[in-house]
Amino acid sequence: MKEMVRVAVDAMGGDHAPEEIVRGAVDAVKERSDIMVILVGQEESVNSELAKYEYPKEQIEVRNATEIIEMAEPPVVAIRRKKDSSIVVAMNMVKHGEADAFVSAGSTGAVLAGGQLIVGRIKGIERPPLAPLIPTKNGVSLLVDCGANVDARPSHLVQFAQMGSIYMEHVVGIKNPRVAIVNIGAEEEKGNALVKETFPLLKECEGINFIGSIEAREIPNGAADVIVCEAFVGNVILKLYEGLSSTLISTIKKGLMSTVKSKIGAALALPALKKTLKSFDASAYGGAPLLGCKGLVVKTHGSAKAIEVKNSIIQCVTFSEQAINDKIRENILSEEG
Amino acid sequence: MKEMVRVAVDAMGGDHAPEEIVRGAVDAVKERSDIMVILVGQEESVNSELAKYEYPKEQIEVRNATEIIEMAEPPVVAIRRKKDSSIVVAMNMVKHGEADAFVSAGSTGAVLAGGQLIVGRIKGIERPPLAPLIPTKNGVSLLVDCGANVDARPSHLVQFAQMGSIYMEHVVGIKNPRVAIVNIGAEEEKGNALVKETFPLLKECEGINFIGSIEAREIPNGAADVIVCEAFVGNVILKLYEGLSSTLISTIKKGLMSTVKSKIGAALALPALKKTLKSFDASAYGGAPLLGCKGLVVKTHGSAKAIEVKNSIIQCVTFSEQAINDKIRENILSEEG
Repeated sequence: MKEMVRVAVDAMGGDHAPEEIVRGAVDAVKERSDIMVILVGQEESVNSELAKYEYPKEQIEVRNATEIIEMAEPPVVAIRRKKDSSIVVAMNMVKHGEADAFVSAGSTGAVLAGGQLIVGRIKGIERPPLAPLIPTKNGVSLLVDCGANVDARPSHLVQFAQMGSIYMEHVVGIKNPRVAIVNIGAEEEKGNALVKETFPLLKECEGINFIGSIEAREIPNGAADVIVCEAFVGNVILKLYEGLSSTLISTIKKGLMSTVKSKIGAALALPALKKTLKSFDASAYGGAPLLGCKGLVVKTHGSAKAIEVKNSIIQCVTFSEQAINDKIRENILSEEG
Repeated sequence: MKEMVRVAVDAMGGDHAPEEIVRGAVDAVKERSDIMVILVGQEESVNSELAKYEYPKEQIEVRNATEIIEMAEPPVVAIRRKKDSSIVVAMNMVKHGEADAFVSAGSTGAVLAGGQLIVGRIKGIERPPLAPLIPTKNGVSLLVDCGANVDARPSHLVQFAQMGSIYMEHVVGIKNPRVAIVNIGAEEEKGNALVKETFPLLKECEGINFIGSIEAREIPNGAADVIVCEAFVGNVILKLYEGLSSTLISTIKKGLMSTVKSKIGAALALPALKKTLKSFDASAYGGAPLLGCKGLVVKTHGSAKAIEVKNSIIQCVTFSEQAINDKIRENILSEEG
């Protein structure tokens, strides 16, 4: 029998906690017998949610944590003060080997701070980046870093490229993933100071398939598998993706309702249209791992519903089975040695 | 009678030069009797294009320029060496008062370099930003800077906000335009070093309506009229806008062709759909002015067709009639004094 992957889940984090979080956990264990979920949060409300469902009882545990870190709290202060918050309790479980992974839809800042301060970085990793999968015309690309480390240095970006490659190859299953750096032109001499310094380092870096610069225009085309950038730019890309997709979709819907003829057309076309648009919905791809921490930390969208929570939990199994952190460790050690 | 606005147009720049450029110039003078266009480029080919059309002859002149600056040439070198290129000749006309404005679909780098080196900055302006209008749910917003000055300083961003406000108020006609700085969160303490330094300066800056940070997600919603950011980020926003819109649109079209039912629906819905999507086409809004130069310099898209060229030329009239540069000059002088 395969070993169980133990995933601690922040039952109190996100816009739809605890309802959707608990439901996502239930759906995950119903789908996979190799997952053990520990729901961390206010026991009473978690248990009353759990009572709504039928599921294999031995696959879900509840761990009490009385405090909640709010979205607006300063992350580092919150992590230090709220020792009995769901995030701190769950991260300590990962740190002490009681859980293999942690999934949260709560405060991004707190998850990032906790990843560094509680779970800790793999030796040799300078800065753990947040790396979501974003939809493209042909599939998905990994965007590293999308918000963890503003004002990064060139050496950080090189590690992002290395860790991103390992993730795309072993978790997503893309052989020899193409790595590109976000730039404002395709030529090597273009860019800001950070990109100009990083470019030659990426060119020299062994073990990655660096294909050069990528302009933002080419990202939705799927022109690279691992898209490297510093966190401010990555965050702008991720947020604009969300904003522009939803604005375009609502504009299109409004447009389709503008004439009687188009309304009839819309009714006929809607199922196909919905399917298409769904493929461009970033939330379908589970959570964003914080790469390079000693245990797996996955941040899922604040607005995550059960489906995204379930996907994020299941993603932890692949990550764990593929022993991604061992691969990152070996890779970085060999670089240093 | 109103005075004519004299617009020098780079007849050799862009993917569709000289055909579409000449056609755009012809369309502009047919639409407006207050514009005089000087087509700058290789005389023979420009004249043979012009010969195709009927138009008020007294409103178009041709000025010979034998050289062409290619897209791939290093901009500053090209501007210095190719003294008889269409860009250099036309910019010298603006410098010497023979033209009020310059429109080019050619090399962005060369236009930016020429704007600074030949036309020159208004006294007090540290860096002229490139400021395109981008489509939103409700209209348009001005994105400054979208590619002119990477690694900008806080004082540059403050001037971008001031010049952008003047432009939106007097050229686009938005009273008391809302100014926001692109950030990775809505709170004042968020951001990278540049944004954190710039934020308090914008708060203190008189004469602008600063509303705080804007996350990229809110840009397509039209949450601000003037969107301030440094050039690398602005370029990423602009390019992703283009890339994501066109990818989504092609994905939607493909989706609509996937079933017989949806094909019929698509046929009925297509006219309304096209109209909607057109409102999200950035090229419809003319060119991007390089704000803060002594004469008006407008960069239009490399793939510009006649319609965008025409719009860019007509835009120069509003700019000139509203005496935008005088307003910038007064505003900056009063800041310094």
